[in-house]
Amino acid sequence: MDSIKIIQGGVTAAKGFFAAGVEAGIKYENRKDMALIYSDSPCRVAGTFTSNLVKAACVLWDQEVVENVEYAQAVVVNSGVANACTGSQGYEYCEQTAVKMAEAFSIDQDAVLIASTGVIGKQLPMDRIKIGIDKLALAKENTIEAGANAAEAIMTTDTHSKQFAVEFELDGKKVTLGGMCKGSGMIHPNMCTMLGFLTTDLSISKELLKEALKLDVVDTYNMVSVDGDTSTNDTLLILANGEAGNEEITSKNYAYEVFCKALNMVNTELAKQMAGDGEGATALFETKVIHAKTKEQARVLAKSVICSSLTKAAIFGHDANWGRILCAMGYSGAEFNPDYMDLYFQGKSGTILIFRDGVATDYSEEEASKILSDSQVTVLVDLKEGTCEAAAWGCDLSYDYVKINADYRS
Amino acid sequence: MDSIKIIQGGVTAAKGFFAAGVEAGIKYENRKDMALIYSDSPCRVAGTFTSNLVKAACVLWDQEVVENVEYAQAVVVNSGVANACTGSQGYEYCEQTAVKMAEAFSIDQDAVLIASTGVIGKQLPMDRIKIGIDKLALAKENTIEAGANAAEAIMTTDTHSKQFAVEFELDGKKVTLGGMCKGSGMIHPNMCTMLGFLTTDLSISKELLKEALKLDVVDTYNMVSVDGDTSTNDTLLILANGEAGNEEITSKNYAYEVFCKALNMVNTELAKQMAGDGEGATALFETKVIHAKTKEQARVLAKSVICSSLTKAAIFGHDANWGRILCAMGYSGAEFNPDYMDLYFQGKSGTILIFRDGVATDYSEEEASKILSDSQVTVLVDLKEGTCEAAAWGCDLSYDYVKINADYRS
Repeated sequence: MDSIKIIQGGVTAAKGFFAAGVEAGIKYENRKDMALIYSDSPCRVAGTFTSNLVKAACVLWDQEVVENVEYAQAVVVNSGVANACTGSQGYEYCEQTAVKMAEAFSIDQDAVLIASTGVIGKQLPMDRIKIGIDKLALAKENTIEAGANAAEAIMTTDTHSKQFAVEFELDGKKVTLGGMCKGSGMIHPNMCTMLGFLTTDLSISKELLKEALKLDVVDTYNMVSVDGDTSTNDTLLILANGEAGNEEITSKNYAYEVFCKALNMVNTELAKQMAGDGEGATALFETKVIHAKTKEQARVLAKSVICSSLTKAAIFGHDANWGRILCAMGYSGAEFNPDYMDLYFQGKSGTILIFRDGVATDYSEEEASKILSDSQVTVLVDLKEGTCEAAAWGCDLSYDYVKINADYRS
Repeated sequence: MDSIKIIQGGVTAAKGFFAAGVEAGIKYENRKDMALIYSDSPCRVAGTFTSNLVKAACVLWDQEVVENVEYAQAVVVNSGVANACTGSQGYEYCEQTAVKMAEAFSIDQDAVLIASTGVIGKQLPMDRIKIGIDKLALAKENTIEAGANAAEAIMTTDTHSKQFAVEFELDGKKVTLGGMCKGSGMIHPNMCTMLGFLTTDLSISKELLKEALKLDVVDTYNMVSVDGDTSTNDTLLILANGEAGNEEITSKNYAYEVFCKALNMVNTELAKQMAGDGEGATALFETKVIHAKTKEQARVLAKSVICSSLTKAAIFGHDANWGRILCAMGYSGAEFNPDYMDLYFQGKSGTILIFRDGVATDYSEEEASKILSDSQVTVLVDLKEGTCEAAAWGCDLSYDYVKINADYRS
């Protein structure tokens, strides 16, 4: 596979993409809470959205746009208010937002995508949203800083912003793919993450952009959980403006494969950043299941472990309570034989074998506890049954998760 | 329906049942950690067990006994060590326990049922178990106190013991049904509760005892969740020794209906006691879904709400964050129309309408917060779709849940 290089930046890394992040006073004081992504060139667009039956108004809006338009040009995002459970008024506010965006950027209304994150059940303060859009129009730049501002503006209880970008070559042209996302709480994506935005200057057909994104989320964002609560607002969008100048990808050729590989790198990195910054988290908690019979078996087992409240609390306590891991695998619904499997803990400080062929090893609790004190902890499960594998990402369960969520609205 | 009267006591309430709770030093110091239930008369027995693929050795043992024997006479329980993930040695220890019980009580080995609860992955200290059995044989009594001692001895992180008993008349004979259970953590039963034991002097066929129990757990223990972790040890047993002298129930007659009603009362009460004493809980958190199209729809929606970490944290914070409840209903997998439903909070201090026909009411946050400060909080969801209903029970998510589970083993 062609070499894919990690570079600085996020949504403005790719050619022709502008961004901005401004203070609009939606809910928070003295912080950026509205973000923009914009491209002068029309973009192919694809998206995946929450599977929650209760969908935010902006999710319904975006689903229409992604399904029906050939090209999009702008994404506008606010944090603080989710515009979910807001009835017909909530949807009208999406229309008003699109109208205002169309005016401010001289683009079509249906080239505008909208995303919101925050408290459910409150209506958007439309006067502030409209003023915010004017500010975004003034502030937009195609710089690294502008991308960073946008990544900051979409945060809620996130403790840091999340960006990642890569570049690779196709037909002798440099292609760039970058993105940003936010996560933190109500994170258990079942189509895609809470909010994620990818931009690329790749030239690709709408169908293949859609297919590549849909397949990739299965092994990236859909393998993340912070608290088992699938949000009403989960949205992942990708915009491709074609400015790299490669020959348009219209079949599953070599260029398509390279793009899929780059997409997987960016999505995996953003998914891990999101998991590691889960509400109250002190560690990124990864589970890898290897030598499984099927990919689906590996996915179900890995995800069950990172979703277990008891296991997550044990990780927070640096306690090698491996019984809870076996328990979580056992109730996952996937078949496996606990009598033949091995289980390891891995951290930056080393790897330790805990359980071999169905029986606990004579491991050192002290050494295990040291590994579990790392900021990234991996549970490695070797099923010894086949050749498939999967990884899932979550975080530990801490006092701060409870604190943040006991008084989130106050 | 005949009147069913609540009475004092638990597993010794019914005629002919003895119990004991003693200190055996399995894991804890200075507390009772082995329990006995015993009947001189042979008992019809039925049980439901964890659906976890990783089953404790004692679960495998009991499944054999319940399936194959006509009568049982004794249940021996230890807390502190779960005898799960202990391989073939764990099962041998069950055999040794049954042999020792058979000697001490002059009964058949296969009339002995065994249950364990505690840390996964440790072997039972068999020397202490055997000494404990001798102590149980000396201590057994058919008194209320002996039943209370047994209920104490099965506790792990439970903060209080859980018992309940009722009596009713059949054929002019008094019939008694009592029980005890323990819960606290790793509670998300998917066949029955962590550990529950029911005794009755009813005369009933094995088939009908089994059927009544199997049906009843669906709406009682299976509607409880503390943390979403289905244990490796879930076990619910019922022993019926026939000493009440009623005509043996062998068909689904009126007497069977009365018994099912009594069984549901006892199981519902024990299930609620377990939920309200979940690890770290400050409140019993109930969700009732009414006017649903189907029973299953009501069950799925109610259970999804009481399982939501975000909703549980909001209850802990006395925060009327109803959007999280709608979110949890939305990702449950059950169909419903959020635009036609109503949602109330109920506590001892009153009832408040929060959400009507898809839109938030102009409720008082202060009044809602007061209701959410009660020790029992109910979310009442009116779907306005049909005539079915269901309830589910959990608890709030507190700092103490994290504390208890971050250092459970140390």
